[in-house]
Amino acid sequence: MTHLIAIGGSDAGISAALRARELDPTTDVSVVVADQYPNFSICGIPYYFTGEVAPWQSLAHRTTADLEATGMTLRLNTLATGIDVPGQRLTVRTPDGTSQDLAYDELIVGTGAIPSYAGITGLDDLTPADGVHVIHSMGDTFALDQDLTQRQPASAIIVGAGYVGLEMAEAFTARGMRVTQLQRGPEVLSTLDPELGALVHDELTTHGVDVITNTTVSGIQKTPAGLTVTGVQHGEPFVQSADLVLVVVGVRPNTALLENAGASLGAGGAVVVDEHMHTGLPHVWAAGDGIITHHRLLGPTYLPLGTTAHKQGRIAGENALGGDRKFAGSVGTQVVKVFDLVAARTGLRDHEATAAGYTPSTVTAAADDHKRYYPGAHPIHFRITGDTRDGRLLGAQLVGKRGTEVAKRVDTFATALHTGLTIDQISDLDLSYTPPLGSPWDAVQVAAQTWQTTQRLTPATA
Amino acid sequence: MTHLIAIGGSDAGISAALRARELDPTTDVSVVVADQYPNFSICGIPYYFTGEVAPWQSLAHRTTADLEATGMTLRLNTLATGIDVPGQRLTVRTPDGTSQDLAYDELIVGTGAIPSYAGITGLDDLTPADGVHVIHSMGDTFALDQDLTQRQPASAIIVGAGYVGLEMAEAFTARGMRVTQLQRGPEVLSTLDPELGALVHDELTTHGVDVITNTTVSGIQKTPAGLTVTGVQHGEPFVQSADLVLVVVGVRPNTALLENAGASLGAGGAVVVDEHMHTGLPHVWAAGDGIITHHRLLGPTYLPLGTTAHKQGRIAGENALGGDRKFAGSVGTQVVKVFDLVAARTGLRDHEATAAGYTPSTVTAAADDHKRYYPGAHPIHFRITGDTRDGRLLGAQLVGKRGTEVAKRVDTFATALHTGLTIDQISDLDLSYTPPLGSPWDAVQVAAQTWQTTQRLTPATA
Repeated sequence: MTHLIAIGGSDAGISAALRARELDPTTDVSVVVADQYPNFSICGIPYYFTGEVAPWQSLAHRTTADLEATGMTLRLNTLATGIDVPGQRLTVRTPDGTSQDLAYDELIVGTGAIPSYAGITGLDDLTPADGVHVIHSMGDTFALDQDLTQRQPASAIIVGAGYVGLEMAEAFTARGMRVTQLQRGPEVLSTLDPELGALVHDELTTHGVDVITNTTVSGIQKTPAGLTVTGVQHGEPFVQSADLVLVVVGVRPNTALLENAGASLGAGGAVVVDEHMHTGLPHVWAAGDGIITHHRLLGPTYLPLGTTAHKQGRIAGENALGGDRKFAGSVGTQVVKVFDLVAARTGLRDHEATAAGYTPSTVTAAADDHKRYYPGAHPIHFRITGDTRDGRLLGAQLVGKRGTEVAKRVDTFATALHTGLTIDQISDLDLSYTPPLGSPWDAVQVAAQTWQTTQRLTPATA
Repeated sequence: MTHLIAIGGSDAGISAALRARELDPTTDVSVVVADQYPNFSICGIPYYFTGEVAPWQSLAHRTTADLEATGMTLRLNTLATGIDVPGQRLTVRTPDGTSQDLAYDELIVGTGAIPSYAGITGLDDLTPADGVHVIHSMGDTFALDQDLTQRQPASAIIVGAGYVGLEMAEAFTARGMRVTQLQRGPEVLSTLDPELGALVHDELTTHGVDVITNTTVSGIQKTPAGLTVTGVQHGEPFVQSADLVLVVVGVRPNTALLENAGASLGAGGAVVVDEHMHTGLPHVWAAGDGIITHHRLLGPTYLPLGTTAHKQGRIAGENALGGDRKFAGSVGTQVVKVFDLVAARTGLRDHEATAAGYTPSTVTAAADDHKRYYPGAHPIHFRITGDTRDGRLLGAQLVGKRGTEVAKRVDTFATALHTGLTIDQISDLDLSYTPPLGSPWDAVQVAAQTWQTTQRLTPATA
């Protein structure tokens, strides 16, 4: 019987444990979870704050009972503190504060990521009790919930306009709060080209969010005005106050445990693993937001995503039992709903492709989600990136109204990227059509044809 | 300057003409159109009858002015009657009834299909004036519209429960008519497995449609009761009457023109073309519902679909100008909305795969369209077919409520089929996820994993 320990109660650790139990029910599987909330959907937290998800318990992908029913042992409120690699022992701090060593045959580390502070002063001292929040765990969720309930803040500054920042802007707005959203770069949702980010910006503004771009926050302090955020906007000092501040400026890999055990760090300061999810340390595997991601177009990179963590965890669980499955690689597919808009991307943007050695060209396109004569048609806005040398699809970005099936249209591009199709070959795909839901040439094909036409008009002399 | 003539004002002919004008604006392009309604969306006709599309003119993909603005010449109300292949001349009957010969350098035939009568007696004599209808052209549309308006029929029998039959059941129901839908086979929408067709059946019943399966119609006659449909149901005589009868039992290729010119007929009695859309007759190309379809899993077959006609027309237009583009092949992707349900398929069903020499296994699966904790989640029901020898994906069928993005989820399977992925590789795809629109393992991956699990539990000894 193999003794397998997975560290981490989020996507990677639980996926690994589930896979091991699925493949070989004789495996003894323990999952070491730092808090008491295993298998919660961190991506769902914003919808708890909009009021759409209640109670908070329903955010669990599976209940503790569900997990235990698979035969795994959950060690909750237990912190992994050290790995004895040669001795194959994991040291943990148990719920009562004592130290304990656990023997393992195979260890899978899914310690994830932790919120980045982006060098903002004040964040080390100010806490949720002061009205300053991050949102990355159920603990953060409870702290924010308590603050919202007890103080009833009327205004919030959200530092950051990425996925979580935008979702939380919607959540605070839904609760009747005045929201100011600060973004360092020239446009919100900087994972998209600004042409498309501007559509998201408009959606925020339409719903009353005060969006301020080109603003770098350097500090947060308590003042008579509440919480005051200071920084620089276009080279000038920036000062604004609100009742509450939420900092969502990204994450960084939580690598201490593996680093101390001798693992190597790579892209983004994340732990290096091979495509089998092996760390290079004997019997030690890793998965999720703490490790590098193999990207089909970029090679090793750092791109923490829940979908990837699920896949990597599943593979680590399989390989820890002697399997030989490779992580096939991410293509960076992401989607976010912002009020009534959906924004998605997959693959590379123009500058990313250039940096990676491709010779990209990117065009803007638009096409209706379904036949215009049928009620409710709306345009989907695209940016399509392809390689001018061989016509290979490199990336696609889509923004459309909710209901335009943008989230699953990006999947067609993601599948095409995975399999290495050219943009021209997208016209060959046999995609579905009925007038209420599509067009004989689907919107994704119209966008692809726009790229093709542009290339023909612009000989590749540049 | 090349003189190109395209025959047919529907998808294939117009796509060919548009492509030729796009690629070489010096090409002289004429389109011979039997009626005066070029480039109308035949797939949209049911939505004219629901009342969702008005006026009927909006069913045009492009107006006559739009088409002429591309530089093509439209010869409306002009019937192609003969091809002189060696002389490269097309004989037409002009609007004033005279015969005229038109010289061409290249000819593209897109004469499409005509409604099948399935051997039902009475259909040759009874006309729209009697309340008996087919629905395949704008002429049919006007005739049905006039009948509905003038006679205000209270009841209809729809013979057939395929795509158009189901859409017309919805349309008649929306107009307050009592609808009886007769289906020869054991379940409606026989392009799906009965397990999924039953969901469509329930949707029809819920909306008041009287669905009668296992009923073969043999005749229609005028009686004091209105129009009486007779046939056989489970070996017993079947008789039912209504104010109106709509016969939608499929189509057959309209091949007379090419057949008389010496073209070969193949699968389904359709004209044989190669993958370049060439008929084998010098300078004569063909595309659309009148020809065989190259299917990536089946080889040559007959599968008339608008999406395919667009692709084939575009390729014929390109190759007629000296291009070298191959039709990459259909995978039979289809989708239909029936009231609030969407049903889609791509690839092969189990018995089709067996007949084609594969060794299929098909499983049923279900998965929510998005995280259940977020409001509005609904299950999508799947049938997944794969080859037990190599794990290759052979087909997928999906049924889900409108809004579950079934139409674009089937496209992920269609793209996977096009590129020859195994079902296992579908788990490797980097598909998009946000809780309101998906799950970390998308529903299509959950379905794929169900197939994988079933294979592991059932060793391929059968």
